Amino acid sequence: MINPFTDEYFMKKALQEAEMAFEKGEIPVGAIVVIDNKVIARGHNLTEMLVDVTAHAEMQAITAAANYLGGKYLIGCTLYVTLEPCQMCAGALYWSQISKIVFGASDENRGFVKMGTQLHPKTTVVSGILANEASELMKRFFVERRK
Amino acid sequence: MINPFTDEYFMKKALQEAEMAFEKGEIPVGAIVVIDNKVIARGHNLTEMLVDVTAHAEMQAITAAANYLGGKYLIGCTLYVTLEPCQMCAGALYWSQISKIVFGASDENRGFVKMGTQLHPKTTVVSGILANEASELMKRFFVERRK
Repeated sequence: MINPFTDEYFMKKALQEAEMAFEKGEIPVGAIVVIDNKVIARGHNLTEMLVDVTAHAEMQAITAAANYLGGKYLIGCTLYVTLEPCQMCAGALYWSQISKIVFGASDENRGFVKMGTQLHPKTTVVSGILANEASELMKRFFVERRK
Repeated sequence: MINPFTDEYFMKKALQEAEMAFEKGEIPVGAIVVIDNKVIARGHNLTEMLVDVTAHAEMQAITAAANYLGGKYLIGCTLYVTLEPCQMCAGALYWSQISKIVFGASDENRGFVKMGTQLHPKTTVVSGILANEASELMKRFFVERRK
């Protein structure tokens, strides 16, 4: 039997969140948190609307997932995010002890990989899932903003 | 004339915030944001109460300061925090473009200096202000928690 719950399946849901950010004029990044193939939290970038540099998609999804679980550690959870997390978000993910991070497009300038941010030793990382879709959305956003 | 608005003066206010965290059973870290010698935001660690790893003192102070200013960049502001910021908080401070960070005690294990987290190039850092007071409060917290 084919497992429908692939990384692509969940990343599509994160992309839907990114599209919601796009529609609000926010840099289009979306994130969801999944446990046992169930989506327990969603978030999209709201830094402009909330006038708050900390309002990244991941931060909101981490907070919402902890709220759902009733505990601040996200052990057993996977975060799907359309863009590679920054230092701040990777630092939050470190504290959360999340089990897995799946990201789409890489951020060569400000992503945690280049920045050298440490994740929790128990966290595994998968990258490049639906990266083209995430990149295209970002490119479209910056083209439209320049108009 | 002697300037009363020294780093020690403001760090005492951050220590008051740390004491509020202590009284709530939270790891005692406090932070304030100052602009033109005026305190515009306060925060103390609330990770247990809010069940949220992102609820560090600095994160709350950054959000509150941006709310006060009506803009997400903290240019011209100084953050006073009793303990060296972690990767997450330093990452948030990077995005905020804050002008100055003053911290008390160093965090040799999880502080941003050892972790190599990048701050904004325009941010200056002062460390060791009332470091003993901040350290003593932390030690007292962990001694009491072990009882």
